[in-house]
Parts: sequence; structure tokens; C-alpha cells
Amino acid sequence: MTVRFALLGAGRIGKVHAKAVSGNASAKLIAVADAFPAAAEAIASAYGCEVRTIEAIEAAKDIDAVVICTPTDTHADLIERFARAGKAIFCEKPIDLDVARVKACIKVVADTKGKLMVGFNRRFDPHFMAVRQAIDDGKIGAVEMVTITSRDPGAPPVDYIKRSGGIFRDMTIHDFDMARFLLGEEPVTVSATAAVLVDKAIGDAGDYDSVSVLLQTASGKQAMISNSRRATYGYDQRIEIHGSKGMVAAENQRPFSIEVANGDGYTRPPLHDFFMTRYTEAYANEIAAFITAIEQGTAITPSGADGLAALRLADAAMQSVKEGKQIKVG
Amino acid sequence: MTVRFALLGAGRIGKVHAKAVSGNASAKLIAVADAFPAAAEAIASAYGCEVRTIEAIEAAKDIDAVVICTPTDTHADLIERFARAGKAIFCEKPIDLDVARVKACIKVVADTKGKLMVGFNRRFDPHFMAVRQAIDDGKIGAVEMVTITSRDPGAPPVDYIKRSGGIFRDMTIHDFDMARFLLGEEPVTVSATAAVLVDKAIGDAGDYDSVSVLLQTASGKQAMISNSRRATYGYDQRIEIHGSKGMVAAENQRPFSIEVANGDGYTRPPLHDFFMTRYTEAYANEIAAFITAIEQGTAITPSGADGLAALRLADAAMQSVKEGKQIKVG
Amino acid sequence: MTVRFALLGAGRIGKVHAKAVSGNASAKLIAVADAFPAAAEAIASAYGCEVRTIEAIEAAKDIDAVVICTPTDTHADLIERFARAGKAIFCEKPIDLDVARVKACIKVVADTKGKLMVGFNRRFDPHFMAVRQAIDDGKIGAVEMVTITSRDPGAPPVDYIKRSGGIFRDMTIHDFDMARFLLGEEPVTVSATAAVLVDKAIGDAGDYDSVSVLLQTASGKQAMISNSRRATYGYDQRIEIHGSKGMVAAENQRPFSIEVANGDGYTRPPLHDFFMTRYTEAYANEIAAFITAIEQGTAITPSGADGLAALRLADAAMQSVKEGKQIKVG
Amino acid sequence: MTVRFALLGAGRIGKVHAKAVSGNASAKLIAVADAFPAAAEAIASAYGCEVRTIEAIEAAKDIDAVVICTPTDTHADLIERFARAGKAIFCEKPIDLDVARVKACIKVVADTKGKLMVGFNRRFDPHFMAVRQAIDDGKIGAVEMVTITSRDPGAPPVDYIKRSGGIFRDMTIHDFDMARFLLGEEPVTVSATAAVLVDKAIGDAGDYDSVSVLLQTASGKQAMISNSRRATYGYDQRIEIHGSKGMVAAENQRPFSIEVANGDGYTRPPLHDFFMTRYTEAYANEIAAFITAIEQGTAITPSGADGLAALRLADAAMQSVKEGKQIKVG
Repeated sequence: MTVRFALLGAGRIGKVHAKAVSGNASAKLIAVADAFPAAAEAIASAYGCEVRTIEAIEAAKDIDAVVICTPTDTHADLIERFARAGKAIFCEKPIDLDVARVKACIKVVADTKGKLMVGFNRRFDPHFMAVRQAIDDGKIGAVEMVTITSRDPGAPPVDYIKRSGGIFRDMTIHDFDMARFLLGEEPVTVSATAAVLVDKAIGDAGDYDSVSVLLQTASGKQAMISNSRRATYGYDQRIEIHGSKGMVAAENQRPFSIEVANGDGYTRPPLHDFFMTRYTEAYANEIAAFITAIEQGTAITPSGADGLAALRLADAAMQSVKEGKQIKVG
Repeated sequence: MTVRFALLGAGRIGKVHAKAVSGNASAKLIAVADAFPAAAEAIASAYGCEVRTIEAIEAAKDIDAVVICTPTDTHADLIERFARAGKAIFCEKPIDLDVARVKACIKVVADTKGKLMVGFNRRFDPHFMAVRQAIDDGKIGAVEMVTITSRDPGAPPVDYIKRSGGIFRDMTIHDFDMARFLLGEEPVTVSATAAVLVDKAIGDAGDYDSVSVLLQTASGKQAMISNSRRATYGYDQRIEIHGSKGMVAAENQRPFSIEVANGDGYTRPPLHDFFMTRYTEAYANEIAAFITAIEQGTAITPSGADGLAALRLADAAMQSVKEGKQIKVG
Repeated sequence: MTVRFALLGAGRIGKVHAKAVSGNASAKLIAVADAFPAAAEAIASAYGCEVRTIEAIEAAKDIDAVVICTPTDTHADLIERFARAGKAIFCEKPIDLDVARVKACIKVVADTKGKLMVGFNRRFDPHFMAVRQAIDDGKIGAVEMVTITSRDPGAPPVDYIKRSGGIFRDMTIHDFDMARFLLGEEPVTVSATAAVLVDKAIGDAGDYDSVSVLLQTASGKQAMISNSRRATYGYDQRIEIHGSKGMVAAENQRPFSIEVANGDGYTRPPLHDFFMTRYTEAYANEIAAFITAIEQGTAITPSGADGLAALRLADAAMQSVKEGKQIKVG
Repeated sequence: MTVRFALLGAGRIGKVHAKAVSGNASAKLIAVADAFPAAAEAIASAYGCEVRTIEAIEAAKDIDAVVICTPTDTHADLIERFARAGKAIFCEKPIDLDVARVKACIKVVADTKGKLMVGFNRRFDPHFMAVRQAIDDGKIGAVEMVTITSRDPGAPPVDYIKRSGGIFRDMTIHDFDMARFLLGEEPVTVSATAAVLVDKAIGDAGDYDSVSVLLQTASGKQAMISNSRRATYGYDQRIEIHGSKGMVAAENQRPFSIEVANGDGYTRPPLHDFFMTRYTEAYANEIAAFITAIEQGTAITPSGADGLAALRLADAAMQSVKEGKQIKVG
């Protein structure tokens, strides 16, 4: 079976998914749509697919699945439209920045028996998958404490920050998803601190650039998250899980594994400097998982419910900062 | 100049300090006192010093300094007595488990112009000192976020836990001191979560065995602390400081730096399994720093005020757990 | 410009190159030939190209370049035929196992002004390229001593070993090429030791499975090579270069960069277990370099002369073992 | 039992041994002798022992053992004198630079049933001991290939080199001993290359500063040694043993285990810059092993025969360089 795809949105992340779909032997990229014709044409030319309108894709008989990479504020509407059109849906996170809107959207998917996968790509990073596998294999016993370090090489433009929903809903949301994925139990309390240490303009836009979060589950498992919009040494992405029988950790990744030694010491190169090179395999793996779930009719993970749960943790973290107290969730 | 010492308390940690004093070319161990004559005799025999009563040491002309390693509930009284007796005082942490008592004790030291050093030995670990030096040398710019991981190979006896003041005042207190030492600015808020994941008996005794803490300073610098009374892989003691220009971290220590590779992978041995072997050099270095401060008449660090500040953070963390909210301190 | 390729030989390594050619935006795979029709059909079907005879490819107007992946004893003849046919040639190592035959073949390439690249893929591994770059950037000063460790997870079938020319011409030849690439000066002496430690059947076939080689250049630079047909921990591929100002080394590669810690210690997974997964990027990079050289009309490296030089070192190593003495070369 | 020591030679290495003896609870340093009275007085004053003549020590009833740290050309004579005087003898390597003289000396020790330990301190380094232990524990199966890297931060004065017997007998001799210790079987062939790459003055003095050596045993086990008198990054001391079931390696040691990350990459500090700080524990352990052997009347290792065997390998390496061929030994 070959799953026939359309791509909605031909921007930066759209190109990543176009490549992932085209490189997958079980998939075929049939069509692309974008508000900017030139962007759509570029993808069509590179991957040998057609440019179509969203309406045409909605009505098409030769499309089984869509990948939604359009601006965030269109996600929920498009999910609902394509769920009703009977297409399997892969949507970049977030579904929406508003919890009520997300819930309504998930309800439409459920009512139409739709298939929806949310793009929490980190679950599909081979190193993080190996961590999850080590836990599943019993290598560390029962999970007790999770530590997630996630720092970006640099802050996005302030304009982006203004519409991103803020650091917790834009950046930490990946870590909330990973914490849930690794804890194996829902957090019930959230405590957070936040500050502007990197760029005053981020503070002027009403957001933070340096945040720390504590999560705890009902049984007492704990997760700590450290985020910064600054990391001079590259894209710092580490996870560590401490369990009753041991610990497992995923190391950072760099493009070149060499070491130079001289009078200044032993130096390895900086890390990847961009999420796309850091997570190249993760993007291919998540599309492959989406295709497999469609082919085999199995449950899709991460689902809309996962998207909602992460968003709720993000909102709770923001509330914790605003009110200076621990927030109960769930 | 040779600083002449008496040792008060000949137990486990007393032996560590007896060795540190005896091995220091600028010091001489003159006397030892202990409620158990056999313990005192053992030290006296091993290091060639006399057994004396505390009273005799208090009155002695041939003693310049004392090292207090007696049970915690005697610390404050002994500090006050020896401050009045004009001896320089090195006291194992904590001064007392009660903030008011600590304050009163510190006042006596101040009123008598006494010299008091509190035994936060980790500041003197060569690796942590190198981290502090890297910060002072401007290697990472302004400190922004501190992460401290501190896990013990196993829990102490529940009897000990009952009188220790609880995990925050017994174990995390070292991390509170390190956080202050590394942040370079006082924390103003404390949020903590705590659970019993290791041993139900610890919970029955009213304490926790797995805790996470978030500290934030007035300018927004943040510190995260992760503590567990369990670590199957040894004595896990890491610090990492993220700054505006870079990051510096101290690695864990193991007795043997080898690696065995086979079909199961590449394996390095577990870490040190005991704080005394992990911090051997730190204990020698802190006594050396105490001696240097006495010889040169310079300020003593960490001081009574440092002991008090760490205790306040411990109390605030406990309050945060009890009340489920962020606690303001200072 | 698009370089149009034909693939000669559709076996294991042929597939690797078919994928590399097809994945390169500046190339197009037009045809494939193989003595086994099914093998050729499989490639043709997977990559959308035609099955043709070698003769047809030789005469084709729509083919600019060939990739030779046929059995070793056909390499020299095919190089000569396609050089005369005016096609650019990428040939898997070795050109031939006989130095005189290699020389004759290279002469034909020169006489026809042909373009020939020999498949020493390791030069194109990103980590080894970064090592070479560090040297070129002056990071370690003048190269003094090179150490190459190259161990295979397991021995090939004895049948293969019998026709491979022996360990020095089959396996060490890659290390001879890397030594030349990194020393930047031709070795003038070769000393080698060899033994059968892994599999007696290899010895019965007249070959060795564990060898060590010392090379020295006229100016005294030295290279050491350690080879084994056995490595329980995976495909062990390390290089280290010591220079007047420092050292640079490339680390081993593993599919998953995680670490599990428990009472047995800290364990990272085994290395890649197969040269194709270890050198995936190297194979793509070498084809890309071949294409770039064709497009830009620049010199091709590694050339036939490089293939010859490595073969001479292999023969000298074998002679050193047989005669128990240092062999002069060049 | 307390072993009563005299120290012969109060120079740099004499001080190291004085400290090791004094710090050992089963030993007591009774006397010191040195041609320079001031040097002897300094040791006597620091460790509370007497200054005596060599003759007085020879005749003394209160001396059980001597540590010989005098100039190399006096070693053999002193060993013979003190063997005849019935003292246990620890002698710094080498016994002598001449094989015949060493043999004669060992014969005297045997004839007098003397106890002689030769100071190959590296066998007692905790990390190298752990490597040896891993082999003994069967962790890597049968030893097949040993790689020893040994590079000094800088060359000694040319005056020292002139009387040291050359790099093979002065520096590589430690590696020859380690190779024998780790191979568990005597080398039967030696091939070496040597060059002057670091300092022309060393070449003018008739020596080399950069050498590589290949050893092979009768059963085919191989060892490679890489030596340089230059290492900008510190005292580089690594060993790696490859066996039938796996590999074990000892890592380099540095005084501070920290890492700084910034835009230039991740940098750990240089290694120890001096053999005395690198091998502090090894020196204490070897004296402890000597004392234990005396107390328990067990065989002493490394013995005079070990000293002789390493010297023969050094001489063979030199001969290999001079004659350009493999040398048979044993």
C-alpha cells in the first residue's frame, strides 16, 4: 500500500515534511497547497507533485492524508475540515493556543472517527527513542525523576514570539510532551519560574526567555525542565531519567565527532546549531510512524489528546509564574 | 606559624578532620575529646595527640583552634563556648536545626569577634573549585541558570533521618549552599516538590527521599536541584552552570577511569560509593583554607551567615512542599 | 548540469552507490548492468532506470559516467574500456591486486585523458574530513604521528578471503590510504607483524586476521595501524594524529548516543555493526565529490595513483611479514 | 610489623619515595643518605629521620629495607652491596644501562637470596591496575593486541638525555614493561622506527624524540607503542587491550574534571603536566606492595628479571632502528 499525501503549507517546516514523505517508500506526495504560489511551485518542482488549492485537496479522491504546516491560527479549522473529508491528518504542533478551541477540534476528530497525529517530533529522535526503549526494557526500573534540558542557540524574532503564545506554549511545550512521554504518568502539579535574561525586547513583548519548571505526578514522580533562548554552544537537547534500578540519559548531538587537544585543553566541536539538522531523523521517523499507523489501522501517537495535555501544562506553567504558586492540573 | 588544633568528636567525620589536620604542614593536632574514651584514644594513638576533656581544651593555652564534630544538638553551645574562649572554630554543618538558635549563636560569635567556619566541604572540591574559577575568569559570562544533581548511593538509617531535620536540612542543604556559592546572588523564592519513592519507612518517619527544588534570585537567575536517596550507580554529584557566554559543568568522579567494551556496549565503572572517598580532597582543602584564614587574619568562608542562609532555604523548601506554593525568602 | 550515470554491478556495494547517485540532485541514474538479470532488475525497479548490457552502456550517448562495482578481477579491464569510451569512471577499490596490471591500467587512463576516481570512501567520512580540516587549519601544527585503529565486527567468509588478496590488500588498504591522506607525505619504510588469532580457517587459507603496521616517511613522520577481523563491540574505526602543536582524533560512531547507569557501571551501546551504516554519509559524499569534479573539470581524488600507492604499501607489508624485516618503498 | 627504611638519594624521585614510605602505616623512614648534605637534611627535617652515610646504613641493625634513588650508574653497585648486607631493596629503574652488568647484579641478588623490586611504577597506577584486573577477570577474553600511547609534555634537558641511555632505555622502557605486564607472554620480535621531530638538539646528542615500536609474542599477540617527547596537551598515558571477547582501556587523567562549552566547542582542561602528579597514587601503591611482599615473604614483582627483560627490549628496539630490520629477542 502507498499512502498518498498532500502538503498544506510550503514554508520551512513544510519542506522538511515534503522531504520526509518523498523519501518514504510507502508514501507518495501528490499535491501541495500554499497561499504563496511560488512556495508551492518550488515544492512541486522539487518533488514532482501538483500544486492544488486546499479545496481541491479536500475533494480529491487521490489523497489519503494531509500534512498541515500552515500558520498556527489555521490548524484547528483545517483539522476539522480534513477530518470531515475523511483524510488522515498530520498536524504540526500546536493544534491551537486556546484550550477550548483545541477541545472542540479534538471532538470533531472523534465524532468523525478521524485520524490525527500531532507533530511532537522529539518522541521520534533515535536517541530519545532508545531512552524510552531502555525504560520499557526495564533497564532502570520504575521511573522516578526526569530532567530535561532544552536550550536554543538563539531567540526567534520578537515578532514570532508575539504570536507564538509565549515560551511555555512555543518552546517548553516540546519538553512537556517529552516529560509526559517519559514519566508514563500524568503530572498533577506544575511550578515554574521565569525571567528575561537574554533579550530585553522579549520581556517588552510580554514573554520570558529563561524558564525552569517542576512537574509532579500523583505517585510522586518528578520532572524538571530547564529552558533558555540562548546557548552559545549549539542546540542543547538532553534528557535524563532516574529510576529505581538505574539511570538512562541521551547525549547531545554534534555534526562532527572529533576532538582537538592542545595547551588549552581537549575541545570537541559545538553541537548542531539548528533544530532541523539536529532532528533530521526524527522528522523522517515521525512521518514513517504516521504512515505505519494509517496502513495498519493502529492508534496514532502522539494524538490530539497529547497535544491538549501539553498545552494545559504550558498554561499551568504560565499561571504558576503569574501567581507565584504551584498549579494543580488534570 | 603552626596552628594548634583540638578535635571535638572522634566519630566518622572526626577521623576525616583528624587526618586533614595532621596532614597539613601548617597545623598540629594537640588534643582530642569525645564522650566515648575509646574513640578519643583511637585518634590520639593514630595521630600522636592527647586525650583531653572539653573543659581542658577550652582552658588550654596550647590550642588555637577547634574542629567541632560532635552531635548536631551540641554544635551551637560548643561554638559559643569556644568563641568566648578565643579559639578559632571549624564546625561541621549544621550549626543548629533551628533558625533562631543559629542566629543567637552567630551573634555570640560576632560579639566575641570570633572566627567561625562552617563545614560546607563541597565548595572545596577541586572540580567544583575549578567550576567557580571558570566563572570568575569570565569563561561563561553572567551566570543565568544553575543545575545541581545530588543523589546518594543509599539512604541513611531511618533513626538518623529522624534526628537529621529531614532531607532538606540534612542533604539538600549542601546543594543550597552550592547554589548560593554559584549563583553569586541570594535566592528570593523557593519552590519544591517532594515524595517518598525509595523507602516507605522514610515516609513513615515523616520525611521524603526524592525532592526537586527551584530557586530564583531577584534578577531572575535560577537554580534547579534534584535529590534522591537512591543511586544504584554511585555517589552522583554534578553541577552545571549556564551563562550568557557559555556553560561550565563538573563531571562525576569514579575511582578507576577505565572502559570495557564488548557485545553489551562500552562500560565505565560505577562512581565513588561513599562521600568520604568522593570528597577526600575537599576535606583536606577546607581545613587548609581554615588554617590559611587564621594565619592571615582574613575573612572566613563559608561563615556562620552562610550556614544560616542555607538553613533558611531548607526551611522554605519544606514550607513550599507543605503549603504547595512558592515561598519568598530573605 | 546533470551527470548521467550507469552502474556496473548490482550487488551489495552497487546498491549503496545506486542510492547515492539517485539521492544526488546533480546526478541521474540512467542504466544498470549485471551478470545476474534479477539483480539488475531490482535496481532498475527501485530507482527507475533501465537494464542494459555493458556493451550498450559503453556505446551510449546518454551516459556520462560509470560506477564500477563488479568483481575485482574485472575492474582493470572495465576501467580501460570506459576510459576509451570517454566516460568518467568511479571504480570501487582495488583497481587490481597486481601492481603491474594497475600501472598498465592507469597508463591507459592517462593516455586517454580519462577521469578515474578510486573508492576510498573513508576520506569522505564527515568525521575524518573534519580531522583533515583541523590539520589544514593548523590546529595541530606539523603532523608527526598517526595512529589508525580499524577492527571489523567479524571476519568475512573464508571464500571471500581467498580471492580478496589477503588482509593487507583487502582491509588494511583503507588504512594505508588514510595514512597517506593524513601524513601528507609518502611512507618510505613499512614494517608489519601478522598473526592468526581469530579464526584458524583464515590461517589455513594462507591469510592473517590480526596485523600491526608501522610506516615512516622520509622526514620521520610515523603511522601505526592496528587491524583485527574481530571486534565484539562493533565496527571500530578511529584515527588520531599527533602534531607539533596538538592532537586531533575522530571518535567512534554508534547508532544511539545514550548511556545507562546502574550497579554495573555506565554503559553506552555498541558501535555500528556494519560498514554500510557506519559509512552511509561517506558513500554519499564520495559520489558527490566525483560529480563535482566532473562538473567543474577539476582533478579527481583519490585517483588511480592513490590506488596504486596503497596497493604498494599493502604488498610491502606482506613482504615485511614474510621476510621479517623493514621494507623500503617508493 | 613495621618495615624500617633508609633512603639512598634525596633528589626529586627520592622525595617522592620518602613521602610514600612516611605515609605508609606499616613503614618507618629511619635514615637518609645523599652526596649533598643539604638534600639529605631537607628530607630528614621534613620526615623526622636521621642523616647517615651509606656505609652506616649498610651496617645498621635498625634498617630492614632501602630505597635506591641515586644516579643510575650507582644502582647496580648499591644493589649488590645491600643484597649482601641482607636488606630488602627497592631500586628505581634502570638497574643499569648495560645488559651484562644487570645480569651480574641479578646473580648477586639471587646468590644472596636477596629481595629486589624494580621501580616500574606504572604497574601500580590504580587505573592500569583496574585494566589488568579486568583482564584477569576474563572481561575481554584472551589478550590479542595491546596499544600503548606514552607522550611527555616536554623533553628533558639534553644533558640528561646524553646519560639516560636514549629514549628507548629511558622512556620507552616503561612501556616495554607495561607491554610485558599486559601481554602476559614474552615478546619474541621487535620492530621500531625513530625520528627527531621535536628538537634537533636531541638528534645532535645521538638520540630520537619520536618513536614507534611493534612487539610480537610467539603465539602472535601484538603490542604497539607510540612515544613522543612532546605533548602540548599534557602527560598522555593511555593503554588499550583488545581481546577475543572485548576491549579494555585506561583513560587519561586530568587534575580537574570540568568542561566549558561556548561557541568554540566543549573544552576539558589539559591533562596532568608532570609524571609526579599523574602517578602520585602509583608511587604510594608500589611502596605499599614492596612492604607487603617483605612482610608476607612473598615474591617481589616487578623483579630484577623484569628490569632485565625490559632493557633487552629497549636494546632490541634501538638495534631495529639502526639496522632497519625486525630483531628477535629471548
